[in-house]
Amino acid sequence: MSSNNQNTVRISMDERSYDIVIGTSLLGDAATYAALPKASTAMIVTNTAVAPLYAKRLAGALAGQYQRVLQVVLPDGESYKDWQTLNLIFDALLQNGCDRKTVLFALGGGVVGDMTGFAASAYMRGVPFVQVPTTLLSQVDSSVGGKTAINHPIGKNMIGAFYQPVLVVTDLSTLSTLPARELSAGLAEVIKHGIMADWAYFEWLEANMDKLLQGDMTAMAHAVRVSCEIKARVVSLDEREGSSGIRATLNFGHTFGHAIEAGLGFGVWLHGEAVACGMVMAARLSQSLGYVDAVFVERVTNLLIRAGLPVDGPESITPDEYLHHMSVDKKAEGGQIKFIVIDRPGHAKVQAAPNDLVLAALK
Amino acid sequence: MSSNNQNTVRISMDERSYDIVIGTSLLGDAATYAALPKASTAMIVTNTAVAPLYAKRLAGALAGQYQRVLQVVLPDGESYKDWQTLNLIFDALLQNGCDRKTVLFALGGGVVGDMTGFAASAYMRGVPFVQVPTTLLSQVDSSVGGKTAINHPIGKNMIGAFYQPVLVVTDLSTLSTLPARELSAGLAEVIKHGIMADWAYFEWLEANMDKLLQGDMTAMAHAVRVSCEIKARVVSLDEREGSSGIRATLNFGHTFGHAIEAGLGFGVWLHGEAVACGMVMAARLSQSLGYVDAVFVERVTNLLIRAGLPVDGPESITPDEYLHHMSVDKKAEGGQIKFIVIDRPGHAKVQAAPNDLVLAALK
Repeated sequence: MSSNNQNTVRISMDERSYDIVIGTSLLGDAATYAALPKASTAMIVTNTAVAPLYAKRLAGALAGQYQRVLQVVLPDGESYKDWQTLNLIFDALLQNGCDRKTVLFALGGGVVGDMTGFAASAYMRGVPFVQVPTTLLSQVDSSVGGKTAINHPIGKNMIGAFYQPVLVVTDLSTLSTLPARELSAGLAEVIKHGIMADWAYFEWLEANMDKLLQGDMTAMAHAVRVSCEIKARVVSLDEREGSSGIRATLNFGHTFGHAIEAGLGFGVWLHGEAVACGMVMAARLSQSLGYVDAVFVERVTNLLIRAGLPVDGPESITPDEYLHHMSVDKKAEGGQIKFIVIDRPGHAKVQAAPNDLVLAALK
Repeated sequence: MSSNNQNTVRISMDERSYDIVIGTSLLGDAATYAALPKASTAMIVTNTAVAPLYAKRLAGALAGQYQRVLQVVLPDGESYKDWQTLNLIFDALLQNGCDRKTVLFALGGGVVGDMTGFAASAYMRGVPFVQVPTTLLSQVDSSVGGKTAINHPIGKNMIGAFYQPVLVVTDLSTLSTLPARELSAGLAEVIKHGIMADWAYFEWLEANMDKLLQGDMTAMAHAVRVSCEIKARVVSLDEREGSSGIRATLNFGHTFGHAIEAGLGFGVWLHGEAVACGMVMAARLSQSLGYVDAVFVERVTNLLIRAGLPVDGPESITPDEYLHHMSVDKKAEGGQIKFIVIDRPGHAKVQAAPNDLVLAALK
């Protein structure tokens, strides 16, 4: 491993355990990849926005270890997270005669990670893959937990697999090129971790939000590490989102948020923006259920606003549309919508809620 | 469980273990399904050939247990084992608002089983599924081992998952409606099990081939049970086709066979027909490598002929085409083709072979 200032978070899942290495200047360092399984071919999967920034640097770092370093560049955006785009990866793998030891590298944000991970799970029924997340959102969210998926016209993330990477390389230097809007979208998930799992972390975020927005690497390294640890702790208790409902609490804000994304059309709002707004709605629902007070809802709302995130839903989506989109959510069972509510600051649970309270939470 | 004369083969894979129930008149008996996980919705996935024969009977048996019994009827044939057809299953699941407890029932042969299994693995990242195989091939082959996949224009079974059913219902009564050509195709895999894993079973098949062809249910029940047990024993040692190469021995005849299917276009020959021919080629290769004698090759060839199977490759495929198709086989690594050879009757191993011996084995 490299001598750069770095942390490692170990994700423990029996034979599918892996490390998240967090630091600066990791991506272009050959030492970062030295312990990966031996193979003749590496394939970098990236998109048109990230390729010009980092693909050459990653390819250079891999060149000493693999005879061939191939590259697939996907179109950029959630609206391309579909079968047609996924198939570009399979086409490239097969056209290049890639065998089942080929290692895929997901270089980009959550969409690239989701698609590369699902492609890796399905190509020849499973090849190894490495996540190299270049957005804050993917560094704190999709790099932990092994959820991969593509969208279907009727619903988001409906087709996918639970599939763990063999390594996650979180190079914080990549955040310097991240647009402000995407940094904010990542902060939505960071704030979520505080609200649903660790109120002291929420308070640390209140105290350090300015530093995070200014790109302070020490603060950022702390936030990424703590967020990964929180998510890892939850996921290790409930890898496949079983009946315990533990993992489902990570979906705080996501039931409302997915309805916003589906209602507007995927890709109009960023995922983190929709989740931010969904968290305010879910906080209001938690208040109307009697679990938390108005001050809690106000602190949540204010921190999201400071992070540059929307807290009001789009006016174009009707209450009926919200209910429809939420009823096809993966967490729904037998048509009943399950919500993640906050039963005390820093703790969440899953439950159904009466329609009138749900509708009242929309604004 | 039903009181019909039946055997159960337990497939042991830790938390993913399941039973194969083998007998007559099981498919339409509600008792067969009584122990399945509770859910509100069942979806039968079948094809245009099988639906008119058995779908109503299966739906009737499930009606007492599920509030909704939905049905998707796919076009029939290996040539439809592609993404477009797979998507018909996802469309139906989503259009009907099916949740993640929905149980899929694969009613049909190997293609229906492969597609339903892959759809079940990927829908909401995994829902339970039941195999109800109605062909001999699927009863002795795809019902054990959890391999699911679709084809890609460049290669067969290239995109898929390892995913185990929760139950396999092997109703031998369905074989009475099976076309003779498909019965023979299933016998190819039955004979394969004797050749690569149990020479006494091969000799039993030599003695009982006439009974099997005449539809003797006692002989058929024995063959299906022994074949499932052989495959289960191999798969339990090596579920994911790891570096031990143990599971790969089940692909005896398949490297050549896949090249025949790819060379002719998928669906022109039945899979079992291509495998039969591929087994003769692999037996010849084993002889030229010095492992077995000419009498062995002759006994293999003769039993396949008696079972109504082709033993000569199509003349339209050139040697170069064979080599090309075999080099993109999933078992190839770093471009080197791996063959399953018989190192003594009833025992197989994986190894590379010189091109001149491979080409000589083609005829």
